[in-house]
Amino acid sequence: MNALDVTEIMQTLGLQAKTASALMAKAPAAAKNKALLVLARLLREQTDALQTDNSRDLERARAAGLAEPMVDRLKLTPKVLETCAQGCEQLAAMPDVIGEVLGMKQQPSGIRVGQMRVPIGVFGMIYESRPNVTIEAASLSIKSGNACILRGGSEAIDSNKALARLVVQALQEAGLPEHAVQLVPTTDREAVGQLIAMPQFVDVIIPRGGKGLIERISRDAKVPVIKHLDGNCHTYVDDSADLVMALRVVDNAKTQKYSPCNATESLLVARSIAAQFLPQIGAVFAAKGVEMRCCPEALALLQGVAGATLVPATEQDWSEEYLAPIISIKLVSGVDEAIAHINQYSSQHTEAILTTNHIHAQRFLREVDSSSVMVNASTRFADGFEYGLGAEIGISTDKFHARGPVGIEGLTSLKYIVLGEGEVRS
Amino acid sequence: MNALDVTEIMQTLGLQAKTASALMAKAPAAAKNKALLVLARLLREQTDALQTDNSRDLERARAAGLAEPMVDRLKLTPKVLETCAQGCEQLAAMPDVIGEVLGMKQQPSGIRVGQMRVPIGVFGMIYESRPNVTIEAASLSIKSGNACILRGGSEAIDSNKALARLVVQALQEAGLPEHAVQLVPTTDREAVGQLIAMPQFVDVIIPRGGKGLIERISRDAKVPVIKHLDGNCHTYVDDSADLVMALRVVDNAKTQKYSPCNATESLLVARSIAAQFLPQIGAVFAAKGVEMRCCPEALALLQGVAGATLVPATEQDWSEEYLAPIISIKLVSGVDEAIAHINQYSSQHTEAILTTNHIHAQRFLREVDSSSVMVNASTRFADGFEYGLGAEIGISTDKFHARGPVGIEGLTSLKYIVLGEGEVRS
Repeated sequence: MNALDVTEIMQTLGLQAKTASALMAKAPAAAKNKALLVLARLLREQTDALQTDNSRDLERARAAGLAEPMVDRLKLTPKVLETCAQGCEQLAAMPDVIGEVLGMKQQPSGIRVGQMRVPIGVFGMIYESRPNVTIEAASLSIKSGNACILRGGSEAIDSNKALARLVVQALQEAGLPEHAVQLVPTTDREAVGQLIAMPQFVDVIIPRGGKGLIERISRDAKVPVIKHLDGNCHTYVDDSADLVMALRVVDNAKTQKYSPCNATESLLVARSIAAQFLPQIGAVFAAKGVEMRCCPEALALLQGVAGATLVPATEQDWSEEYLAPIISIKLVSGVDEAIAHINQYSSQHTEAILTTNHIHAQRFLREVDSSSVMVNASTRFADGFEYGLGAEIGISTDKFHARGPVGIEGLTSLKYIVLGEGEVRS
Repeated sequence: MNALDVTEIMQTLGLQAKTASALMAKAPAAAKNKALLVLARLLREQTDALQTDNSRDLERARAAGLAEPMVDRLKLTPKVLETCAQGCEQLAAMPDVIGEVLGMKQQPSGIRVGQMRVPIGVFGMIYESRPNVTIEAASLSIKSGNACILRGGSEAIDSNKALARLVVQALQEAGLPEHAVQLVPTTDREAVGQLIAMPQFVDVIIPRGGKGLIERISRDAKVPVIKHLDGNCHTYVDDSADLVMALRVVDNAKTQKYSPCNATESLLVARSIAAQFLPQIGAVFAAKGVEMRCCPEALALLQGVAGATLVPATEQDWSEEYLAPIISIKLVSGVDEAIAHINQYSSQHTEAILTTNHIHAQRFLREVDSSSVMVNASTRFADGFEYGLGAEIGISTDKFHARGPVGIEGLTSLKYIVLGEGEVRS
């Protein structure tokens, strides 16, 4: 496809999305919820047909020699589709936040001033492999009263097209504009470049995928990006920690799953309790095959642990997001050094302190500059569902607009509203 | 100055700001308020010295042939300085929003999840002429716990340097880091290019100035920009409006001052009351020398008004921000057409409906896609002070992050905080 054709396609999608967004912004909650419930029904009714479309993607992936774990991520199993359907139903059951009025107060002039929650307008979502993201993004977009343009990975194009057809059908049955959710129909890479450079049509871009993709999009985008780079998450075991709790929480934070961005990648331990705590947690890691990359002091304390894989840490280790059975371990003098180390090396995703000391807890909460800061809990909790947001479209490691897990409110904006009785400015 | 020197200066400012921002983020409210009160005292004590520094800028401006209204904007009169001092005192008296915890709720897992308000970090401010903006930006930065880098206009460099010295003295007296507020010491234009492209040091850019400046900065910035483009504000007089009130409010919205961005530039009138209302408001405008650029129907209805300057409106007039005694006038069939016209032509700054009809008021509030939407009030109220924000660093016509007048909260971000008792993820 030549660049001109792609431009024409993307401009058309943009204009249609912009037009649909005005209708979505004033759509009744009942219509949006109906679309979500219809979509849930269609996902269940069409499970067989969806799997047929999905199988074409799977065959192409296998023929191209994709590794089986990557092929797995492409699969629309009945279980995956049922989870999508349930997600839609949960969103339908949630209260509608659009039109919510906050902080209405009378001012000295007599006018009453507050803020009304409204949709952002149009968002563009760029994602790889898993086709179920198409349904997650579409359903959040419908509930939040936005319009969206979805650009999935080329490896899932047949599955995404089939899912997008169901979304359009659901929008139509609910009397909502069919262009409220549009899938980019071409796999041409130029379409991404266009999508992120249409400020006249698109208000924000949400990329989901590898660091390379997100860095490239952030660099080239002409509109704001809700971006999520690394999750180099830390857990700090304070000198006053309950060590029984600490053992359980650190184990969970590192080993419950290795691949999520909220898994702990770096363990900091207060020097005064290290001789007691490190061999205990070291034995847990050794039993689970977790490689430990240690500062010299930690290395010395862990030498006696049977079966442990111990490696001296390099400077690079303190910045690394492993997403694997590897953890970096460093002794610190106390909460001050822990905070300083984290603010220097972390990716500002999620950090936890394990402590019984109130002052240390408060200082950690206030001074650690990350999107989620925790006391006595596993970093694995950093997640939209666990935070009660109902759904999550991504996790922002930025400070601007949304920070941390982004749910429906992250897709909205607050405009000022003023109610008067004929007041004038003097 | 060569580009390398400018780079070195800006990198140094950036690193110093970043370091200072961590100290400001945890600074006690008392220290921040003390700095503001000391600054107020210094502005009063040093009024004479400041005027001496200011006179060098004024002489240079006159020698360069600057028009007298432009020279006026540069003046640091005792009145201007007293207003700055009072602004600092008002900020000091306001509650501190940093550390505020919002929405803390227990989740099914047992963890309690809320959000804590924290400073954004470092903002860069780029502005023209008026040197008092140096104090406004510095004081808001101090109160909000941020660090900032200020880049004023070259025409005010001596005044800005003198004011920045007082700010540094106030920070030092209060025990706060002196680099929390830094003025770019060079007038080299390359410094702006550098300031907007240091994402490692600067979190957000706030430009204040002409549309050209803001468009240029938005295009080239590598960090988010809180931007304020035009204020093409509308007032719509509904068929059910109280016409006595409408006359007073429309008059105020257009003529109380012509230059502010929140002055009404376009008047929409419901056709059914136009024959009654237009000649009345037309007479007011005629008496004040306001030129009326009218649609054909409005033109016909205004023909009989003595002394009126009537001009047929062109398509361009509906998009124009005049900032002058000129108003465009158009008849519409009712609230639907008014909303559609506004959403097509407005700059999404501020729009008002004058009506006694509840349904029309609610629809206008909800469907008009602007940063401030008003019922029965003058658009001139769109202002941080009038909205009770205590101060205003700018007005955002964007939807992302801050929208409308930006006060202290617009310079903050919300991070998630999680309090647990050893919970783990299952």
